[in-house]
Amino acid sequence: MNVTFPASLDLIVIGGGPAGYSAAIRAAQFGNSVLLVEKERLGGACLNSGCIPTKFLWETLNLEKKIKRAADHGFAHVPARPEFSLVQQKKNKAIDIIGHGLQNLLASYPITIIEGTAHFTGHRQVAITTRDGAITEAQASKIIIATGSRPRDIPELGIDPIRIINSDDALRLGGVPKTMAIIGAGAIGVEFAFIFAGFGCDVTLIEKESHILPAEDGELSSEVKKLLQRQGVKVIESAGTLEPLIRDAEQVLVATGRQPNIETLNLPAAKINFNENGITVNAYLETSQNGVYACGDVTGKNYLAYIAQAEGIAAAENIHGGKNTIDYSTTPRVIFSQPPIASAGKRPKDCDPAEVITGRFPFTANSRAFIEGERTGWVKVLVEKKTGLIAGCQVIGAEAEALISIISMALKRKTTVNDLKREMFFHPSMAESIFGACEDAFNKCIDLPNKI
Amino acid sequence: MNVTFPASLDLIVIGGGPAGYSAAIRAAQFGNSVLLVEKERLGGACLNSGCIPTKFLWETLNLEKKIKRAADHGFAHVPARPEFSLVQQKKNKAIDIIGHGLQNLLASYPITIIEGTAHFTGHRQVAITTRDGAITEAQASKIIIATGSRPRDIPELGIDPIRIINSDDALRLGGVPKTMAIIGAGAIGVEFAFIFAGFGCDVTLIEKESHILPAEDGELSSEVKKLLQRQGVKVIESAGTLEPLIRDAEQVLVATGRQPNIETLNLPAAKINFNENGITVNAYLETSQNGVYACGDVTGKNYLAYIAQAEGIAAAENIHGGKNTIDYSTTPRVIFSQPPIASAGKRPKDCDPAEVITGRFPFTANSRAFIEGERTGWVKVLVEKKTGLIAGCQVIGAEAEALISIISMALKRKTTVNDLKREMFFHPSMAESIFGACEDAFNKCIDLPNKI
Repeated sequence: MNVTFPASLDLIVIGGGPAGYSAAIRAAQFGNSVLLVEKERLGGACLNSGCIPTKFLWETLNLEKKIKRAADHGFAHVPARPEFSLVQQKKNKAIDIIGHGLQNLLASYPITIIEGTAHFTGHRQVAITTRDGAITEAQASKIIIATGSRPRDIPELGIDPIRIINSDDALRLGGVPKTMAIIGAGAIGVEFAFIFAGFGCDVTLIEKESHILPAEDGELSSEVKKLLQRQGVKVIESAGTLEPLIRDAEQVLVATGRQPNIETLNLPAAKINFNENGITVNAYLETSQNGVYACGDVTGKNYLAYIAQAEGIAAAENIHGGKNTIDYSTTPRVIFSQPPIASAGKRPKDCDPAEVITGRFPFTANSRAFIEGERTGWVKVLVEKKTGLIAGCQVIGAEAEALISIISMALKRKTTVNDLKREMFFHPSMAESIFGACEDAFNKCIDLPNKI
Repeated sequence: MNVTFPASLDLIVIGGGPAGYSAAIRAAQFGNSVLLVEKERLGGACLNSGCIPTKFLWETLNLEKKIKRAADHGFAHVPARPEFSLVQQKKNKAIDIIGHGLQNLLASYPITIIEGTAHFTGHRQVAITTRDGAITEAQASKIIIATGSRPRDIPELGIDPIRIINSDDALRLGGVPKTMAIIGAGAIGVEFAFIFAGFGCDVTLIEKESHILPAEDGELSSEVKKLLQRQGVKVIESAGTLEPLIRDAEQVLVATGRQPNIETLNLPAAKINFNENGITVNAYLETSQNGVYACGDVTGKNYLAYIAQAEGIAAAENIHGGKNTIDYSTTPRVIFSQPPIASAGKRPKDCDPAEVITGRFPFTANSRAFIEGERTGWVKVLVEKKTGLIAGCQVIGAEAEALISIISMALKRKTTVNDLKREMFFHPSMAESIFGACEDAFNKCIDLPNKI
């Protein structure tokens, strides 16, 4: 493979996922000559084995749910279920189209793309092994590492690539297994439990902590557990020895998180500090080696595509003298259960109950939710007693991922419940539920029954 | 009809629509004894002949659109179309259920409800004529007028209650006419054009101004015009004499706006100022008569349910010493075309082009929109050049009514484009388009091709 790129590069970006391509484009916007190294497919895990394919499958099942409810809107016939193998084909086609768009996007900037695996050979110097085995050397005044992550294994389970699979493999299945045991009930495990149960699989979801979604608000995780059980998923919490729990499952999906891709980078050659959780960076995303930055999943902090993008943008700007840091405190978190859950800011367990009051609004009192048949859901807001500042929010229900952006904005702009006004929320819309929950914190919601 | 209510009332609210019931509930939350007078059905035009029924019909057609696209998600069969008469039944049922919920809500507060028509007999004194012709006198220390509005007629068209109808009548039609001429292409006319065209009617939409949706951004109105034409609607702008344009239409829908319900109130008896546009109020929603307030459509200012609610709440609080005013500058405006449009803050025509820059993000570059098959749409933001403050926003596309709440929040909290951060917007979500448009204002959007 013959790749020509400028002898004097401003920047090498290792990894073409959300962090890497965002960094490359921002640097190119600054006028930099950029080399982008990608070992497999542009778009990284997000496009090829994460956000996009899982959301496609979620949307398919969401569509099925809507179609089932069509009789409530005067439709006479209800169609057959989606055919899983066909859905997989359509999903792959969607990935290809978005991937093609990403290629075109990158091609519009002065960015050289090389397909290969990079490892450090010196401070700001790498060797890139292309698929045909050829090795190309490259150096640049700055380097951004954005090699992402991959599913974490459980080595003790042994190797059985047909039966014991990870989320990458699950997205390639041609059919729906009869039974599936999912190990790990974090975001990934829960999303796959809804997907496979939705396509008719008999799913057992196994979590070693005392609650599924242990990182989330306890009330949200209880709601999701109920929804899973309603879908026929067997939920096992505080799980002990795995073997008996997975013995009878046709398919075992390991969903115990992700691990950073650092092994092939030869980080010691560039004196870059790392540990088993990923590459160590400071607040400006610079590693222990001057001029070398790391962003996205490889830093082991978040494993969220939009934070990876934010970090990629910040790293590229910091290379140009910026002092950008990421504000993790206002970031929304969303999990695509059916319906989805979302949260931002503080959870009840982060707060002193004496200092925070809670407001709540159920979707059953929202007329838009009623019209759309989306009656499962609520918004919960946490409000600082002294100041009235919105401190956090949890949502379950349709459009949770849209509603939570309103809260991220409120948190970012230090908003009190008094700053929110009825006239800011269109009627009828799901977003009114946020206003309702804020008013409820003071027992003043006009759409909820008298509490006094 | 025998109604008993406290001899000494704190508040009489005339009208049980969004303004009136919101005012009544807030006053009851303050501990007031409240009498609520409603002449027809609680919920007013919003519930019975406005927001709710039109959104139900919109949602039915939106559902049909989604079902038609189900093949893109691996569904094999596509169902029949919705049956209009059945849809109308389902819609009426939805109204009944929401109306029943509203009755229960009001019943939970110490509010006495009387069904009748109120007219002033003195300063803060009214006579209520109930359906059986009985007249009840009532007086209170405060009165809130919230009698709402009704569709505006065109008297010159003459009377033909079968052929020439208004939006109230249109929502009661049992079948779809073959042809319909809609006079007036504001929000109401446009929404009904989409609804009836969606159900197979041959619609002609007639506007006397040079563009449909004359109060909106010109680019939005052009987009909506194209969408209407794609649905087969014949759009006539700068229309002259009506008669030849409506001559052949089986049904003529007059959608030339709304007019305040003031005629039966006998306002002079209470020395309350009004003109043909409605009751005159100050910033605190108080009329020319001390202690008498007016809010919602009857003031002739907005004809939007959520502003009516906001005004109802504000009036009730002002009665208790509050100094609440409504911030109309951040209010979202939404029109349910297919897909919907929404806007908040300034439009391009409100700005000096030398002082404002525009950013734009198309839904074709949003991967969530792609997954959902919602590829028609864009977000346009107006940014003050000097300060970077977000000044306004126009949106067309799926979830426009959710996205615009993020902008209302940004406007309310005086937000600059630099305050917006990538990490605030979940991926993949429609809301990312707002961030993309803000970055685009400075040619820095990483999801759009190189512009330099």
